[in-house]
Amino acid sequence: MSKQSNPGRRRQIRLGAIIQGPGGNMAAWRHRDAVADASINYNYCKALACKAEKGKFDFLFVADGLYINAKSIPHFLNRFEPLTLLSGLASVTSHIGLVGTLSTSYSDPFTVARQFSSLDHISGGRAGWNVVTSPLEGSAKNFSRTEHPEHGKRYHIAGEFLQVTKGLWDSWEDDAFVRDKDSGVFFDPEKLHTLSHKGEYFSVEGPLNIGRSRQGRPIVFQAGASEDGKRLAAAEADAIYTRQETIELAREFYQDVKKQLVEHGRDPDELKLFQGISVIVGDSKEDAERRYWETAELVTIQNAIDYLGRYFEHYDFSQHDLDEPFPDIGDLGKNSFRSTTDTIKSNAREKGLTLRQVALEATTPRPTFIGTATDIANGLEEWFGAGATDGFILRGGTPTAFDDFVDQVIPILQERGLFRREYEGETLREHLGLAFPINRYAAKVEQAVANIG
Amino acid sequence: MSKQSNPGRRRQIRLGAIIQGPGGNMAAWRHRDAVADASINYNYCKALACKAEKGKFDFLFVADGLYINAKSIPHFLNRFEPLTLLSGLASVTSHIGLVGTLSTSYSDPFTVARQFSSLDHISGGRAGWNVVTSPLEGSAKNFSRTEHPEHGKRYHIAGEFLQVTKGLWDSWEDDAFVRDKDSGVFFDPEKLHTLSHKGEYFSVEGPLNIGRSRQGRPIVFQAGASEDGKRLAAAEADAIYTRQETIELAREFYQDVKKQLVEHGRDPDELKLFQGISVIVGDSKEDAERRYWETAELVTIQNAIDYLGRYFEHYDFSQHDLDEPFPDIGDLGKNSFRSTTDTIKSNAREKGLTLRQVALEATTPRPTFIGTATDIANGLEEWFGAGATDGFILRGGTPTAFDDFVDQVIPILQERGLFRREYEGETLREHLGLAFPINRYAAKVEQAVANIG
Repeated sequence: MSKQSNPGRRRQIRLGAIIQGPGGNMAAWRHRDAVADASINYNYCKALACKAEKGKFDFLFVADGLYINAKSIPHFLNRFEPLTLLSGLASVTSHIGLVGTLSTSYSDPFTVARQFSSLDHISGGRAGWNVVTSPLEGSAKNFSRTEHPEHGKRYHIAGEFLQVTKGLWDSWEDDAFVRDKDSGVFFDPEKLHTLSHKGEYFSVEGPLNIGRSRQGRPIVFQAGASEDGKRLAAAEADAIYTRQETIELAREFYQDVKKQLVEHGRDPDELKLFQGISVIVGDSKEDAERRYWETAELVTIQNAIDYLGRYFEHYDFSQHDLDEPFPDIGDLGKNSFRSTTDTIKSNAREKGLTLRQVALEATTPRPTFIGTATDIANGLEEWFGAGATDGFILRGGTPTAFDDFVDQVIPILQERGLFRREYEGETLREHLGLAFPINRYAAKVEQAVANIG
Repeated sequence: MSKQSNPGRRRQIRLGAIIQGPGGNMAAWRHRDAVADASINYNYCKALACKAEKGKFDFLFVADGLYINAKSIPHFLNRFEPLTLLSGLASVTSHIGLVGTLSTSYSDPFTVARQFSSLDHISGGRAGWNVVTSPLEGSAKNFSRTEHPEHGKRYHIAGEFLQVTKGLWDSWEDDAFVRDKDSGVFFDPEKLHTLSHKGEYFSVEGPLNIGRSRQGRPIVFQAGASEDGKRLAAAEADAIYTRQETIELAREFYQDVKKQLVEHGRDPDELKLFQGISVIVGDSKEDAERRYWETAELVTIQNAIDYLGRYFEHYDFSQHDLDEPFPDIGDLGKNSFRSTTDTIKSNAREKGLTLRQVALEATTPRPTFIGTATDIANGLEEWFGAGATDGFILRGGTPTAFDDFVDQVIPILQERGLFRREYEGETLREHLGLAFPINRYAAKVEQAVANIG
């Protein structure tokens, strides 16, 4: 197992593929090419996973949510749960990473550590956990809680949750299991460690009943571009999933994150940054535009207004005139999708948009990467070359766009040496070029030996 | 989809296959034929699953536990988590049911309902949930709890937990998702239901973000033979997993459960009863004996004493003389594995066993079904014919015994018409001959229409 990425290799773009319903906006299921039940169609998910692996993607990425109501987006109403979906897909793929979203606000670290580690073992070291804190206020009501913790507290909880999880993942050193049939020694007791964590939110004894995996432990993603989110990522994550509108904003974000990383005593290369994007590939610019509008026009204004409300703690925008300027709704949104709602508000103010315009734009945003395959390859190269990101997590902007991307854009990136032609390694950690994490207890021993020496 | 089992078909034995480390006792990993890391070896699990499916087993069955320490059995120290394991196995099998253990004492009904439903969708209607309440006191310390709830309270919690879970599984009626591309109607709002459960232990709003599966909802198993366990099963379960030492005790248990079922207003056939057994197949009786001893003798007395303590709230038996009568330890055990510890105590008392004898017997009990393939087939037929059980959940008593059972015993049972030659259906519900559960809200509508008519 290679413990380091090859330093001589040219730096390449890294790519994740989102599995989340039929590609495109909330109404894309109506598209003639769409698999309308994609979010709960396992054959569809298998086909997408295999296509992404054929395209040598670094990983699949499954989003999640813990609260729905009748106004939620169709593909959120009836969807697979990420860990079970990815475990199923582990059996039909061999190389691609498997990254699933799970909330630290409504789960227990012991179970989360186990389930991701188990996925990591099943997949031979391909698991990743996208840590979220659940923006939706309504989640509390599904989990016997009287209130949804506020934004800052959610990130405090997440920080401690991650420390516990990582601690549990080190319960057994890599070579703890001896399994010597003759002597009857199954494990080396010196290499079993009890966490005994007692913190503000959790108290977890350990040890975990599963050992280290081929990649040491699952890769930790953090999603959420707020200041709290960035701080958490800089302290604890291996990767970050974010979204900025322009290359300039993305560069700024990138530099800020890498700076915070250094402030936490980490190497800037220890965390990979991913921009979430959607793409539409056409035979010409005009063809791509036509494809965009074909999908955009499937969204009704009522759908759009309902969807917008979800970002703002389920605010009912239908009480406002659609063609008046975007209403002043005060602080609303700061306790849920904070970075997204801040952007929506400032964008509306700056451009003087009406409620109708804001709603339609939020529901079916024009992809940053739209055009011919060459246009898209150029765009990705530009962002990557400008130091705006380490890679992209992408979804198709129409039901067929993901396939088009794999068939048409990937070969161009490969041709330019910007993307792999074959997997260099077998674990997600190797794909991302992240170093193998030394078990904390083994590291102590190494340090002690070094001190004596 | 057939909604009922074929009533004309001869009643047949139903079989589940346990996946849990290398077959045999706690030291069986030392056996020359054993895969020593079986509990965390995915290829081993895949092979066992495929073998069981080839043998037309009704289901795979994965046990679980939430607490370990250095004295735990080897194959509990480093094991797959059931839901992820079964989701992986769903992709490499096509018919066999997938039953996983999960505790109601240390989890949230919303997540549990989602994950099992997701497995049910991934597998095309083959999921089952074995409900346990976590016997091990130490579990509390892994889940930020100050204390492990006592036995009766655990079963109260389990009862409410199951009501919530089943309620969430009915959030969407079977035909709720219309997905009409032309009209843009994704679902029928009349067929979406919000649970709004407010109970003693849980308050869960709903709806669940996943719809009904091909078998309606996952099959519910209950494991635990205490009076509390039986009551829970009679009220809520589709199947029960138990273990009795003799055919007489098993019949008594069977009749009691079926009687309680009727008292709950249910049909006796609505719950299937399974005896947990281990088997050893030999070329002759002597060969089978030899195989038993070969595995039994791998257990050291220290292993046995440590293992025994686990049943009794981690009591340290090493403070007693091994060759004195089994010590009086009072009530110990009543709050963990109650039915098991009651049996151990009364057995020791009745037979006047020493601590050494009790420990060795508990660790590597002689299988009830040991002998030639014909002997074993005769034994199963006898229990089944006597009305002691509806089927068996079995594990090999040696590392090769499960394969031997499939290769040698299954054909005899098939020959006698006691076991299927081919799967009759595609869902676990169909295999077990259980009726399709009508959604509670649809049932209300049906009832109302009938009343009007």
